[in-house]
Amino acid sequence: MRAVADVEALVFDVFGTVVDWRGRVACESAAFLARHAPDVDPAAFADAWRRRYSPAMEEVRSGRRPFTRLDVLHLENLATILPEFGIDPVAIPPSELEALNLAWRRLDPWPDAAPGLTRLKRRFVIAPLSNGNIRLMLDLAKRAGLPWDAILGAEIAQAYKPSPEAYLRNAEALMLKPERVCLVAAHNGDLAAARRCGFRTAFIRRPMEHGPGQTTDLRPEQDWDAVASDLEDLAGQFGL
Amino acid sequence: MRAVADVEALVFDVFGTVVDWRGRVACESAAFLARHAPDVDPAAFADAWRRRYSPAMEEVRSGRRPFTRLDVLHLENLATILPEFGIDPVAIPPSELEALNLAWRRLDPWPDAAPGLTRLKRRFVIAPLSNGNIRLMLDLAKRAGLPWDAILGAEIAQAYKPSPEAYLRNAEALMLKPERVCLVAAHNGDLAAARRCGFRTAFIRRPMEHGPGQTTDLRPEQDWDAVASDLEDLAGQFGL
Repeated sequence: MRAVADVEALVFDVFGTVVDWRGRVACESAAFLARHAPDVDPAAFADAWRRRYSPAMEEVRSGRRPFTRLDVLHLENLATILPEFGIDPVAIPPSELEALNLAWRRLDPWPDAAPGLTRLKRRFVIAPLSNGNIRLMLDLAKRAGLPWDAILGAEIAQAYKPSPEAYLRNAEALMLKPERVCLVAAHNGDLAAARRCGFRTAFIRRPMEHGPGQTTDLRPEQDWDAVASDLEDLAGQFGL
Repeated sequence: MRAVADVEALVFDVFGTVVDWRGRVACESAAFLARHAPDVDPAAFADAWRRRYSPAMEEVRSGRRPFTRLDVLHLENLATILPEFGIDPVAIPPSELEALNLAWRRLDPWPDAAPGLTRLKRRFVIAPLSNGNIRLMLDLAKRAGLPWDAILGAEIAQAYKPSPEAYLRNAEALMLKPERVCLVAAHNGDLAAARRCGFRTAFIRRPMEHGPGQTTDLRPEQDWDAVASDLEDLAGQFGL
């Protein structure tokens, strides 16, 4: 933990690290699917929706598309996957798709998230550094009781992780050198990109993010500055 | 209060409306002045520092200067006023000026601020819409226990109030139409600019912001949508 002794701010990946996206998206999709495609497995639908996440952001990261909020990308991605499940997107009223899209603002936190963040907040500035937009993160935090000091992230940077600008512009907003900021994430790729920008790194094990068959990010793939089983464990490692 | 029935978010002016800038800046300046200009009245020094506030931002608003964080403007303004009080800026170590400049991150809330915001947060999204930068607002909120849902403001908009962009880009970050957002402020000019952008408006009486001799903003100068004596009174008017 020596490398994190000078850290002033902890910034967090959110989808998967702080909240369980898959459970809620599947749950809210189930009601939608019951009306339009009753044979579809809601978890498979959630996974398909999420698979479009990175390719959609890649359009922005590559410069082919100006920065576009994740709420918008999520809605486009939803329309894109409907045919894969035998649903005609044109047959669904836009308001129904917009309502389902808001499931992403109602994700449930992992049980350790709110109490862990409350402890970590005693010593550190805490903020999300998510690809989710400000309003999405705000609604999610308000519902789940996540006590962020500020809502940082892709919208502040106008750049999506893992682009370096997504990390560096958020450190700049905190008026901190990158080595005074630690990214907390359940994803090795996110941590690797942050480390390349000079951030400190903390890996959180979330072996159920993708459900019982998860094969990725089951363990730390580099010597991250901290490794914890959850956010309460991380707080404990800091003596909080 | 009918005009505010559809409001989803309350955004707040901070310096003067939520916190007492003059008391703390005078108090921290007193220790500085004791070393360098013992005959100077700390409140007069605080007032002189604050008088540079709007002209410094006007350089940005006019387009003569790119957007520059308020922490930076405050530090420049401090160096600018020193000769007025017989202090040679070159004789003071930069680190001492930087330390004094941080007084703006340690402003005390008016006594009603934290309890009033806590009540208002039950129904509304609450966020600062201040000219203060993210880090300044964050530190201030953390110290004072202000339970913001997010830190909005000039840095998000890359524009200073009362420029229209400062209001409109923050409503856009909330993904709300301007009429779903209400500015809460102790300054008629700020409210007038927000109203021109379509915001709802709430005036808070802060007759001591500028000390006992205050002559400005003692009363509402338009028919603002709400008028309250403080943030607890405002919460009460909303039935919270």
